Amino acid sequence: MTVNIALDAMGGDYGPSEIVPAAIASLSAYSELELLLVGKEEAIQEELAKHNASDNERIQVVHADEVVEMHEPPSQALRNKKNSSMRIAIEQVREGHAHACVSAGNTGALMATARFVLKMLPNMDRPAICTTLPGKNGHTHVLDLGANVDSSSEQLLQFAIMGSQLTSAVENKDNPTVALLNVGEEEIKGNDRVKQASVLLAESNLNYIGFVEGNDLYSGDVDVIVCDGFVGNIALKTSEGLAEFIQHTLRDLFTTSLYGKLAGAIALPILKSLKHKLDPKQYNGASLLGLRGIVIKSHGSADRVSFATAIKEAMIEVEKNVPDRISANLDLLQLEN
Amino acid sequence: MTVNIALDAMGGDYGPSEIVPAAIASLSAYSELELLLVGKEEAIQEELAKHNASDNERIQVVHADEVVEMHEPPSQALRNKKNSSMRIAIEQVREGHAHACVSAGNTGALMATARFVLKMLPNMDRPAICTTLPGKNGHTHVLDLGANVDSSSEQLLQFAIMGSQLTSAVENKDNPTVALLNVGEEEIKGNDRVKQASVLLAESNLNYIGFVEGNDLYSGDVDVIVCDGFVGNIALKTSEGLAEFIQHTLRDLFTTSLYGKLAGAIALPILKSLKHKLDPKQYNGASLLGLRGIVIKSHGSADRVSFATAIKEAMIEVEKNVPDRISANLDLLQLEN
Repeated sequence: MTVNIALDAMGGDYGPSEIVPAAIASLSAYSELELLLVGKEEAIQEELAKHNASDNERIQVVHADEVVEMHEPPSQALRNKKNSSMRIAIEQVREGHAHACVSAGNTGALMATARFVLKMLPNMDRPAICTTLPGKNGHTHVLDLGANVDSSSEQLLQFAIMGSQLTSAVENKDNPTVALLNVGEEEIKGNDRVKQASVLLAESNLNYIGFVEGNDLYSGDVDVIVCDGFVGNIALKTSEGLAEFIQHTLRDLFTTSLYGKLAGAIALPILKSLKHKLDPKQYNGASLLGLRGIVIKSHGSADRVSFATAIKEAMIEVEKNVPDRISANLDLLQLEN
Repeated sequence: MTVNIALDAMGGDYGPSEIVPAAIASLSAYSELELLLVGKEEAIQEELAKHNASDNERIQVVHADEVVEMHEPPSQALRNKKNSSMRIAIEQVREGHAHACVSAGNTGALMATARFVLKMLPNMDRPAICTTLPGKNGHTHVLDLGANVDSSSEQLLQFAIMGSQLTSAVENKDNPTVALLNVGEEEIKGNDRVKQASVLLAESNLNYIGFVEGNDLYSGDVDVIVCDGFVGNIALKTSEGLAEFIQHTLRDLFTTSLYGKLAGAIALPILKSLKHKLDPKQYNGASLLGLRGIVIKSHGSADRVSFATAIKEAMIEVEKNVPDRISANLDLLQLEN
């Protein structure tokens, strides 16, 4: 089967200069892949020419006049930028020209536009953002990461179903473990929404194992961890801040004394591996779940290598038909109630 | 002035075996300090004898029959353990025998017992937990870290006042900067409570600078960051999990190849410094704020060095009279409304 993916070629910090090489590399790697590059035609063609890929028959350029800025309010982007590369890339999915869309653009605008253009699956209110975090014993899918604040216990259950289906599909795991993020593992801990969600999850057909705490986000012991978007966003940003602080401290320690400099020179390859392992771009490609279509959000600062990781994530979700799997399970949920 | 501090000698993972040496070291360091060691007299005397400190006139042993277990439910500890070392240590503050109390015991039980024995300051509902996090450009006081879930906007304002007074007192800063933790810096971001709290903070006499995101917990750019206890606890535990994962990864990288082993041996002193800098015990001594008295929570796994850090924190708060400063400013708040 051919997999068609629409790329918002203008999104992110670098636009076509990194996204076009990512596209070309992905086409070389996956023979079943075809790509629609959406954005300013001239800029895209120029990049294609640089890489001798102007004649690549598996690339189609779709012109889009406008670009959504990284800090543009989502409502404004939705209202005023009907010809943005982001919007037209998403429309390729709605029109059946692409199986999925990948964008490194403004998260809020991507979410609002995807929701408007593709619509939500039945009984779903807003998309949830799901990403993968590395851990000692494996990795963990975490959602929601900022799309929803003040989620109800029913929404937390929906996140759990979506996260479970996604993990089951992309990791080939039959019955992934699901936990709720809380301030303690005991049943009496936490706020009312988390406690109520725990009851709903325990009654569901999910492989629910109970509450976990913040440190479990990096243990890799649980397949799926569910939380409100406010909490998830703060946990993720806190991690970014701490990782940066640690790298800063290491740099300091390895440059302030002669011994430090020597040790630093010797340890450099190891420290580079560490940096690589901690780089959020390594796990690039967050899924916007709950939509009638596949939309993958790449980190805004993604380079060609990490943007290609997001394309790969989109391909897997297409092959595994993630939205249909989620939809089938949301229907089940409704029948149960 | 003599500073008297009551230590819960039985709390934490190690009890008297680390707390007694911490006490003796602190007495050597601070000539104005006197200590009440509360707990099982025999165990404490045995430790004192080991360190030739049985005759130290600045130590008084106060016998307590019972010990609150680390995972005992707070309500049970409060109801059934009226002769616990934790409770009797707190009672020393109420009775005027000590200016402050330090415990490495069960956080929930410490909070519930402190609140019951000492009572809250006027208009305060529950204690907030405040600790210090390290950052690139300095360090930051963060509260609440788990005492309160679902805090109202008024409670977030109270946390801000308490955090500001604490920071001003212990850091000798006139007008510490205060920010609210949110999922974005724009005014429209976040949940209703955070948005309402932002209005209250902007109207207050605090040096309020607006919203910050999770990564700012480790920037050191803001003096005080305020959040709901649910969010604060998860941010803190996420940090612990990530720091552990990074150390695990470093250990792995430095042991899996011959080059790694060599580099690791050379970099070992630097890596030890890193571990030391990341060790939460380095910043030991979280303040329980809002009480009619000073209570410091030490990390449960604190060794003698880090327990002494918590004793030092208690001394500073006594010298700066933190509860009175908070109380004066809470009164002001009420007059304004």
